[in-house]
Amino acid sequence: MANCLVAQSGGPTAVINASLAGVIRANQLNPVYDRVFGGIHGIEGVLEDKLFDLTDLPAREIDILKQTPSSALGTCRYKLKRGNDTDYKRLVEVMDAHSIEVMFYIGGNDSMDTVDALSEWAAANGVAKRFIGIPKTVDNDLVPVDHCPGFPSAAKLACQITHATRLDYDAYTRPEVFVLETMGRDAGWLAASCCATGDVDLLVLPEVDFDKDAFLAQVQAKMDATGECYIVVSEGAHYADGTYISAGESANDGFAHAVLGGVALTLKQMIVDAGIAQRGVVQDLSRAARSSNFAQSLVDVTEAYELGLSAHMHSARPGFTGQVVGIAPRTDLSAPYNPVFFAGPASQFANFVRTFPEEWILPDYQGITDEALAYFRPLIAGEPKIIYENGMPATIMPFNKR
Amino acid sequence: MANCLVAQSGGPTAVINASLAGVIRANQLNPVYDRVFGGIHGIEGVLEDKLFDLTDLPAREIDILKQTPSSALGTCRYKLKRGNDTDYKRLVEVMDAHSIEVMFYIGGNDSMDTVDALSEWAAANGVAKRFIGIPKTVDNDLVPVDHCPGFPSAAKLACQITHATRLDYDAYTRPEVFVLETMGRDAGWLAASCCATGDVDLLVLPEVDFDKDAFLAQVQAKMDATGECYIVVSEGAHYADGTYISAGESANDGFAHAVLGGVALTLKQMIVDAGIAQRGVVQDLSRAARSSNFAQSLVDVTEAYELGLSAHMHSARPGFTGQVVGIAPRTDLSAPYNPVFFAGPASQFANFVRTFPEEWILPDYQGITDEALAYFRPLIAGEPKIIYENGMPATIMPFNKR
Repeated sequence: MANCLVAQSGGPTAVINASLAGVIRANQLNPVYDRVFGGIHGIEGVLEDKLFDLTDLPAREIDILKQTPSSALGTCRYKLKRGNDTDYKRLVEVMDAHSIEVMFYIGGNDSMDTVDALSEWAAANGVAKRFIGIPKTVDNDLVPVDHCPGFPSAAKLACQITHATRLDYDAYTRPEVFVLETMGRDAGWLAASCCATGDVDLLVLPEVDFDKDAFLAQVQAKMDATGECYIVVSEGAHYADGTYISAGESANDGFAHAVLGGVALTLKQMIVDAGIAQRGVVQDLSRAARSSNFAQSLVDVTEAYELGLSAHMHSARPGFTGQVVGIAPRTDLSAPYNPVFFAGPASQFANFVRTFPEEWILPDYQGITDEALAYFRPLIAGEPKIIYENGMPATIMPFNKR
Repeated sequence: MANCLVAQSGGPTAVINASLAGVIRANQLNPVYDRVFGGIHGIEGVLEDKLFDLTDLPAREIDILKQTPSSALGTCRYKLKRGNDTDYKRLVEVMDAHSIEVMFYIGGNDSMDTVDALSEWAAANGVAKRFIGIPKTVDNDLVPVDHCPGFPSAAKLACQITHATRLDYDAYTRPEVFVLETMGRDAGWLAASCCATGDVDLLVLPEVDFDKDAFLAQVQAKMDATGECYIVVSEGAHYADGTYISAGESANDGFAHAVLGGVALTLKQMIVDAGIAQRGVVQDLSRAARSSNFAQSLVDVTEAYELGLSAHMHSARPGFTGQVVGIAPRTDLSAPYNPVFFAGPASQFANFVRTFPEEWILPDYQGITDEALAYFRPLIAGEPKIIYENGMPATIMPFNKR
């Protein structure tokens, strides 16, 4: 009997462990594999033969795993590059050593590219290993899906903080601006989702080239009209020439992405320097948004878990490889929410960035359309019953720390 | 029959509206006053005769008010200064115009000083008005109490974000530091509370003069030992000469406090510049901590509500003025939590800052003692049953926006 391997990659989310829980639980319900191994620190640890046997994880631990944020197996920034035969052969060596036939990889578009590359390579080299992707990303930027697990919970926390800080801001009389910064390098999904609360006056997205004068004119107009201006900005917002608004540091995180930060502070200073407001308050969601286990969306945690189940179920079919499971795009946003699960070729998920749709963006930084609101609202609906211990959501000891 | 007035002042909290709800509900249970007026934007609006009749607020709205963050009446930074007879006379004029005999003021130590000053002035001038304080502050820096309403919920969110971001941080292999910044200008209560999760490696408080070399040595030691260092710092941390660590802006908020920010970023850069880690992640809780209605502590919201009830009940006694209600200091931190309510002279609450106790601070930035942990743990216990609407905790329309 063959074994399987599951690993996590890229930035953690509030529900990435729910997908892991789904794979583990599916195999307890239908033991297609003799052992379910977890790869410690993604592909990085797998190449070093660092595995953890998850097969018999007790039901109580699985329940708590579902509400444990971050990557319980540990994650990595290491990218298994196409054409890197040394890494590929080493991976197969480790898999062989543990009789592993199938690898499940939970990650973003880089990881889905890895799934694609590995399955291609296996086919080309007559290697009988299979590779299956389970998507996650708070950025919500994968192409062929309605949304990505992890995003709805990040959006739900972003909405909760937007509404709470808007009420906080509204309690004062002194005219000042408020600028909330969200994660979102190339796509503004998370920033846009904040508009679902009805609290956002101006929205600055990476999808629209930033025009300083036009933006400041809108800030002035809001301040003139109401004495208030609550702004949400995505970290990756930039000028027409591609220059980021933020004056943040620019380092390399191993994937050739710029490391961003500080756009909210930059906008606030811009407004103060223009004499539109004397002061401003800045709130950066930063990592809190993606690790918000205390504010999981019920839709999100359920879907992340079920995608884990689904990936395991599909894998029982011998030819199933180079595929990724996902939630299909909704065809009618006004219909009651009813997620449809599908599986598709990893190549469709990999290396494309789905930006926030242009037709959903209102002109002049005025937010998003009703259709966009209809897209967001069901995703943040519902709250799971969280298991608390001593006033905190219970979490498991991460496997990479055991 | 006389009326009463209730107003809110200073920085909002997650439960300041629960105290307001308590006053309103108490008068529905025992109508000592004919009308309960809310002062819009604290004393600032009261002086302008901006009142809102809260007497008959429906029970459902009272329930939602308890979970509405920020100051539902609006707040102000205006300080009713001692000796400002013009303001005092104007206040009495407004109170007279609405047959108001008693004013409840919900606020921090500046507001408790206002309660003290007004009651003194009323006695000295034979004015038959009474002034009663209900404390709130996320800073937890009032002297004669065990803790202040608002602080436990801020601590609970701070703990939840500490644990979630620590798990996020732990998922990676690359050595970098993590620095979490909390509010806390002169007192490090909120920063210290993060240690209740067991996740904090180093703690930097305003109560200990910052020694850069000693601190960096500790960071180096943690990195050497585990490759990780999770740091929590209070915004007001400073060097021995009083200079703030932060390079943040220094403006005036009307109460002669410096406006701080950026200490986490400063510490991170200090560590990177010293070559101890190549990178670091910064998370600033900022206003999210004090507006965390989605993470209210059950202890906190219950006590805030009951202090509102208690203040109203005490006020039925004709001579009751210049007094503040509160939770008495615990005598035995190992005993089961059992809050004791009391009322004491406002002068004891006003203008003193209760810093985090020196004897609870471990040397070398190593966190806090077991006694301190025993102090914090019951405060963050329990979660109220939150009423959700469309995936968000329901909130009322603020009275200052009606």
